[in-house]
Amino acid sequence: MHAQIDALEAVPGGRTIFRRRHLKADGRELFLYGCAPPAGDPIGAELAASPDAACEIRRHPLRGDQAIYAAGRQARTFMPAAADDPLAPATTGGAPTEIPFPDFEIAVFENRFPSLSAGAPLAPSGPAGVARTPARGRCEVVVYGPQAEGSLATLPPERRELLVSVWADRYRALFERGFAYVLPFENRGVEVGVTLPHPHGQIYAFGETPEPQRRAAEAFAAGFDLAARIEDWRRDYEIARAGGVVAFAPPFARFPYEAWIAPAARRAGPWAFDAGEVEAFAHLLGDMTRRYDAVFGRCTPYMLTLHAAPAGDAPDYHFTAQFYPLLRAPDRLKYLAAVEQATGVFTVDVLPERAAAELRAR
Amino acid sequence: MHAQIDALEAVPGGRTIFRRRHLKADGRELFLYGCAPPAGDPIGAELAASPDAACEIRRHPLRGDQAIYAAGRQARTFMPAAADDPLAPATTGGAPTEIPFPDFEIAVFENRFPSLSAGAPLAPSGPAGVARTPARGRCEVVVYGPQAEGSLATLPPERRELLVSVWADRYRALFERGFAYVLPFENRGVEVGVTLPHPHGQIYAFGETPEPQRRAAEAFAAGFDLAARIEDWRRDYEIARAGGVVAFAPPFARFPYEAWIAPAARRAGPWAFDAGEVEAFAHLLGDMTRRYDAVFGRCTPYMLTLHAAPAGDAPDYHFTAQFYPLLRAPDRLKYLAAVEQATGVFTVDVLPERAAAELRAR
Repeated sequence: MHAQIDALEAVPGGRTIFRRRHLKADGRELFLYGCAPPAGDPIGAELAASPDAACEIRRHPLRGDQAIYAAGRQARTFMPAAADDPLAPATTGGAPTEIPFPDFEIAVFENRFPSLSAGAPLAPSGPAGVARTPARGRCEVVVYGPQAEGSLATLPPERRELLVSVWADRYRALFERGFAYVLPFENRGVEVGVTLPHPHGQIYAFGETPEPQRRAAEAFAAGFDLAARIEDWRRDYEIARAGGVVAFAPPFARFPYEAWIAPAARRAGPWAFDAGEVEAFAHLLGDMTRRYDAVFGRCTPYMLTLHAAPAGDAPDYHFTAQFYPLLRAPDRLKYLAAVEQATGVFTVDVLPERAAAELRAR
Repeated sequence: MHAQIDALEAVPGGRTIFRRRHLKADGRELFLYGCAPPAGDPIGAELAASPDAACEIRRHPLRGDQAIYAAGRQARTFMPAAADDPLAPATTGGAPTEIPFPDFEIAVFENRFPSLSAGAPLAPSGPAGVARTPARGRCEVVVYGPQAEGSLATLPPERRELLVSVWADRYRALFERGFAYVLPFENRGVEVGVTLPHPHGQIYAFGETPEPQRRAAEAFAAGFDLAARIEDWRRDYEIARAGGVVAFAPPFARFPYEAWIAPAARRAGPWAFDAGEVEAFAHLLGDMTRRYDAVFGRCTPYMLTLHAAPAGDAPDYHFTAQFYPLLRAPDRLKYLAAVEQATGVFTVDVLPERAAAELRAR
């Protein structure tokens, strides 16, 4: 069997990483990324995707926002037994898996239960007066390693750095396929609805830039200078700094203990990092996760999203990674309830400057 | 003691209801509403409000939305023991309560832990480059009755009708105080973060109309004709109809099993209902709650928000009450995770037309 392996320059001046492309039995793409060329023949049984269900976007005529309807997802995997972990490396004669290889460093594959897909059909007819479009896009799963347990805090530094380079490569690859906006993210913890405990993230590539991301691009184009603000906010809001990268509590946080990581100098996305920024950003991803778990004395449920520039020219855009933890105290979940869901106005019980001080002290 | 009791015409052509104003020991207002004049002298010990903590709104420079910082709320009541129910009628020598009367029909009082307040001070200094305003507004609690258990489905019909009239009166009173937008709501169930099981709702009166509500007013002014749509959607989306009021699944639902209740003819808010609409709307509020609990076979956690026109002239606005249940199946919570929180794009596993069929069949 011929394996297609590409050597990639991870970042300007960075080291070389390797990407191996494998076509799964049901036609989905799988990429193995490694610091060494991913070797070996595929083994084991593979999980197969369900046939494309209707997957469409409808626009809310009063709010202006969008909902994706993906009826095929209702049957998705829910807290499998450990022996059925679909993100584990394959074993001969073992349970079917998504990654038919005996070992890997980082694996990326197309989601078996996508919300967005390249060829999604529209339902044959729709409701009067409601704008509908196919939910064009691509959903990928990013598996951080072969181990079924762990977190960004416990990954070895070189694996976290590889992850940053993988994100940079996925941005490039998905922009090349014509998608308008690429959102790498991680949901952590059962409280956020995570159905697979195996450490992993996901990527949604959207056909259209979502509204808040479009607004952010406009704010940067209109002159919002995050690099200057990061220095202004240093005393009261900074949590940690490594190399040219800073972790801080944004003074306008929507979540108690919300924290952002950003290069101190403007970069449009991880693809524009230099080697030192990759290392520092990777370090702070682990460091922030560790700080959260220390402040709350438990595995902190959070949502992590990466906010890079949309496709095309956005010369003023400043990349941030944003952690939204779901706790307001060790034993108190932060709920998003009626007011937040109806008005978009968040109520926050913890001032960002206090959250920054607590996280800084860890 | 002289009790100030007003007789109010609940709605055009409706019956008379009574409102008694009582000033609590800490200066907060309490209103008892009844079909009969609320009688009796105050008894028992009262819970006192904490001193005003800084309560401010900061604008997110990239998203454009707002967060309210209310540090005083972190200490709020959390799942008190039944004997300490602060919404129970007072007993002589009993635990301190919010309602120092031995019985009542519906009680409304200013929240002891408000997110918005009329005289909220700004923190003395704020972060550079972030717009801050005092969180001007008013937060009220609406207690549906003296019983510590129950729901909109189990209230007697005349109590639900009284509740609709109370909402109408609160809209009028809060608009008169100069607030721009009034949002009555109910959070139900521990899964939505409800910290007091005693059946109650809340009202937030905002100094400024929130963005989605402003957009809705614009959409109606631009010609969005909900009355016509409700008829278009009748076959596939209607759940129940009573008098001139309709319950339906909006075809652009953000939550699986989301349902709206609206008068078939345009009304700007409950204050504009006729007597038949009050009765039908009250009936459908209970009926929808019952249907949810029947479909899911359990007490369904939900968020209910009332969307009326903002203060001032909005002649095209069409009132809706919106239920956002937090389940996608009896044993599956709907989580709002990274994609929803970062992009505002909701992923829905259940098509609204299927949700409507399931809810209609109950």
